[in-house]
Amino acid sequence: MKAAIVTIGDEILIGQIVDTNSAWIAGKLTLAGFEVEEMQSIGDNAQQIKDTIDDVSQRADVILMTGGLGPTKDDITKKTLCEYFGTTLVFDDSVLENIQEVISHFTSLNELTRNQAYVPKDCTVIQNKVGTAPVTWFDYNGKVLVSMPGVPYEMKYVMENEIIPRLQDKFDPEAYLKRVFIVKGYTESALAMRIADFENNLPEGFGLAYLPSPALMKLRLFVRGEHRSREMDEQVKKLHDILGDAIVAEKDMTAEKILGEQLFEKGLTIGTAESCTGGNIAQMITSIPGSSRYFKGAVVSYANEEKVNILQVSPEDLDRFGAVSEAVAIEMARGAQRVLNVDCSIASTGIAGPDGGTDEKPVGTVWICTTYKDKYIAKKYQLGKYRESNIMRASNHGMLQLLDMISE
Amino acid sequence: MKAAIVTIGDEILIGQIVDTNSAWIAGKLTLAGFEVEEMQSIGDNAQQIKDTIDDVSQRADVILMTGGLGPTKDDITKKTLCEYFGTTLVFDDSVLENIQEVISHFTSLNELTRNQAYVPKDCTVIQNKVGTAPVTWFDYNGKVLVSMPGVPYEMKYVMENEIIPRLQDKFDPEAYLKRVFIVKGYTESALAMRIADFENNLPEGFGLAYLPSPALMKLRLFVRGEHRSREMDEQVKKLHDILGDAIVAEKDMTAEKILGEQLFEKGLTIGTAESCTGGNIAQMITSIPGSSRYFKGAVVSYANEEKVNILQVSPEDLDRFGAVSEAVAIEMARGAQRVLNVDCSIASTGIAGPDGGTDEKPVGTVWICTTYKDKYIAKKYQLGKYRESNIMRASNHGMLQLLDMISE
Repeated sequence: MKAAIVTIGDEILIGQIVDTNSAWIAGKLTLAGFEVEEMQSIGDNAQQIKDTIDDVSQRADVILMTGGLGPTKDDITKKTLCEYFGTTLVFDDSVLENIQEVISHFTSLNELTRNQAYVPKDCTVIQNKVGTAPVTWFDYNGKVLVSMPGVPYEMKYVMENEIIPRLQDKFDPEAYLKRVFIVKGYTESALAMRIADFENNLPEGFGLAYLPSPALMKLRLFVRGEHRSREMDEQVKKLHDILGDAIVAEKDMTAEKILGEQLFEKGLTIGTAESCTGGNIAQMITSIPGSSRYFKGAVVSYANEEKVNILQVSPEDLDRFGAVSEAVAIEMARGAQRVLNVDCSIASTGIAGPDGGTDEKPVGTVWICTTYKDKYIAKKYQLGKYRESNIMRASNHGMLQLLDMISE
Repeated sequence: MKAAIVTIGDEILIGQIVDTNSAWIAGKLTLAGFEVEEMQSIGDNAQQIKDTIDDVSQRADVILMTGGLGPTKDDITKKTLCEYFGTTLVFDDSVLENIQEVISHFTSLNELTRNQAYVPKDCTVIQNKVGTAPVTWFDYNGKVLVSMPGVPYEMKYVMENEIIPRLQDKFDPEAYLKRVFIVKGYTESALAMRIADFENNLPEGFGLAYLPSPALMKLRLFVRGEHRSREMDEQVKKLHDILGDAIVAEKDMTAEKILGEQLFEKGLTIGTAESCTGGNIAQMITSIPGSSRYFKGAVVSYANEEKVNILQVSPEDLDRFGAVSEAVAIEMARGAQRVLNVDCSIASTGIAGPDGGTDEKPVGTVWICTTYKDKYIAKKYQLGKYRESNIMRASNHGMLQLLDMISE
């Protein structure tokens, strides 16, 4: 069962927004056993929308579209679908009722919002319980086209609760087996050489992909068909034999998720003391639901004054070694343990860039200290020149460094 | 001059990664005067790559591809381009030299990395100064196809320093005029009704798009052609006359960027006290280069203990009103001002979800207090049920609330 994803919106084509819908939809479709063959992003342009439906219909059984359903003039998807499928817009009272319920908490009905209740006559209308744009489902030539709003949380709600169950009912697709391994300590090419024999001897139909991410490598091993699960288990065992401890986790998990599970299992609490990561580690840890069970707090000590006043870093050490130094990283991490009253801490101090580098400490120099009860590790990382990527990499290194300590 | 963006990688199609390259490239191409007509994401599959080049070549003058250039077996773009353009791979010493320079800081050359120095014979090779995969540029039928690595920072470096200048030299495209307005206090449909007359009377060729984002609306007004800049100015003036103070900024800026500029201009310092946003506000503020000029630090007081110990929130008030309350929000904000010694502060306390809601305080209830010297504002927001979106919306509301106070 092949699927295509089409996202509609001029704002995507000029780069004003990143299309995150496609990846999210692709993940759900893949898990449900559909094979996503292509994704296309196109403009709010009637001819282009029709041409694209013609084009992807040649290859896909399921076409999922998002975008162009807003109440304003620039949104033309609904009208264009009417033209494409040769139908007209009719007013639907049940949609109006749903709209009124959705908006009742924060605003009253105006004319533009009321117009959202017009829907194509010949299609299945699916109520959008979290927004005002209804979802429409077209059956044609044994295929399905679904048009959903582009607002991510509306689309997600509709996909999970309405579209995926209906697609599975209709197509009953063959499931896709996938195993993901989080591997530390290897570059992409070093890892490839380490497992070259394994890769060359994979059974027919198996695939292996390498996904570098900041400070981590992911390996994805995959094959199509439920009946191959025993073979999959065998290959997974082989990979474990080769890589051993370098496999940090065997799920498609982020460092913050792996760390969170470990902390929770061991009943440990954590806090952070962040300078160059500016709260990013805390933000990543708390992005996980339920993180309040182990995360107690953070001190973002961007200015030296805060390092001294809140974390009790010694002013003499700041003077003598500078803020980006082993001594200060250790004092920050110990300070966090004390002030936040936690078992473990992660402290970061470095030069994220683009400015502030020196010959001795160029942009990308980061000291990370992690503590676990009375133990600590302080390590210097030489990262790159990009602020955003330095912050991400430093955050991941910090979490992995702590993970190493508490897993021992 | 029409452009197409093609991103290659199985990991995109199964939703394992979000393709952020396309949006970034589209933004740069748009500013350089190219019109991005479409984006496609396809798999690491030779036939699909060739078919897609055939397809988009019918419409685009410039095709920018990323991905599939890694050293491992699953990456086949370079080989496929050789087949498509009828050429072969040859070893290039200058590429090897560049690779050795790039990796010298952190690892030594292995065979897979050395193989990156094989490049198609008939193409222009552009050195990748920040990675091991060389960039290749093909001229054919008056069109250009460029293949770049998929690693975002490598692609960005190459685009900015090599590709955009060369494309401008070759095509000399007509520029795209665009003005973006950040508008507060309107829903999408309310804003559309407010400016309906303006929109209906826009001169020929002008377009207007609505971009909702957490807690903010963006309006984009655009037209093609440098010579229309006077008309653009006239329309911008009209829009200001209609919307007045609701226009928070007139650039495509995030709330953290607008706030940062205001703080810097007024010589004010800021800190945050975050509970439900978990450090996200600090992370957003410090994502801006140079933010250390106004941001001093943050206390992420996830646990009540930290609210009391570090921010000196009264334990009696925590007991009496609960952590998610006006009183606690105010005490957190005042505590941040005192402890971090800053002019302004933003404090958040709420229930991000998915758990922890009650009848009285359902998921999405957030109190935000902002302070500016001796003034403060505390406001309750009723957000939605999605953790991620609640954290983002609360963060943006906090920054906008403070922006209101300091702009007066």
